[in-house]
Amino acid sequence: MNTIECIKSRSSVRSFKQDEVSEKLVEEILDAAIRAPSAGNVQDWEFIVVRNREVKARLTEAAWGQGFISQAPVIVVVCSNVRKISDAYGERGSSLYSIQDTAAATQNMMLAACDKGLGSCWVGSFNEGKVKEVLVLPAHVRPVAIVPVGFPASEPRKSQRKSLGEVVHKDFY
Amino acid sequence: MNTIECIKSRSSVRSFKQDEVSEKLVEEILDAAIRAPSAGNVQDWEFIVVRNREVKARLTEAAWGQGFISQAPVIVVVCSNVRKISDAYGERGSSLYSIQDTAAATQNMMLAACDKGLGSCWVGSFNEGKVKEVLVLPAHVRPVAIVPVGFPASEPRKSQRKSLGEVVHKDFY
Repeated sequence: MNTIECIKSRSSVRSFKQDEVSEKLVEEILDAAIRAPSAGNVQDWEFIVVRNREVKARLTEAAWGQGFISQAPVIVVVCSNVRKISDAYGERGSSLYSIQDTAAATQNMMLAACDKGLGSCWVGSFNEGKVKEVLVLPAHVRPVAIVPVGFPASEPRKSQRKSLGEVVHKDFY
Repeated sequence: MNTIECIKSRSSVRSFKQDEVSEKLVEEILDAAIRAPSAGNVQDWEFIVVRNREVKARLTEAAWGQGFISQAPVIVVVCSNVRKISDAYGERGSSLYSIQDTAAATQNMMLAACDKGLGSCWVGSFNEGKVKEVLVLPAHVRPVAIVPVGFPASEPRKSQRKSLGEVVHKDFY
């Protein structure tokens, strides 16, 4: 798919077919994720690919019961290795670059998923402590996004956007 | 350009031709930016498009003298309207979603730029207070990325990536 078309057609998918998502497809979208830029090329991202039914159920619980998460055949939990980025950049690393690097990777992954006919949804609302417990993350690895991935069960609803005029300024605010 | 090809070929450009970047092209990459997902579709992003020579010079100063910034014909400063996102989501909004939403928009913008033959670079290292002063940003609008944009003067160097094996885990860490 053409890049601009892909960027414009991507939208949040919260309803998935039970069709298997192959290892190869998951690898392809993760390979897109790691092409994102990161501060000083530190690449502080880590990805937990969850297919285990019980782990999926526990992730849904940790995300305040958002049921569509565990219905996806695969869930990718995007994490930042906060130690890596704060070793390089201190507080700005852990509070800003850590989140930006992994967000850019997440967006790449979701665009690649869309390009492959997959649907996904960026879930940011969850109990971080519980997710760390479920995935046995070490203290220095922070989960920043839960992304269920699968083939869309229905045409997703496009959400509205403000016009450029409302959010763009010239030279000054 | 094909999405995956675009994701893989994008890399940081720090050297620009002086060729003009049309208003239309800038609009197209900003239109890609605002197609990013955002928490609750709050769209807390704002963009300052800088072409004024003096403002560009002052932004370079605020970014510790990284000279390539002011050499770009256009600079897009990506900001988060932190009040909007914290009104909706409190502290998690201002410290996490604010940064994720604008990072996803920045990544979309840089991919669209690459698709159009433009080069760009994600600059995260700058004095936020100074940038706010230069762009006359209100207190609740935080600059999170400075992105110089222009036609590349030379073939950018591709940075290396860790292998997937180093950053991907199955079911647990």
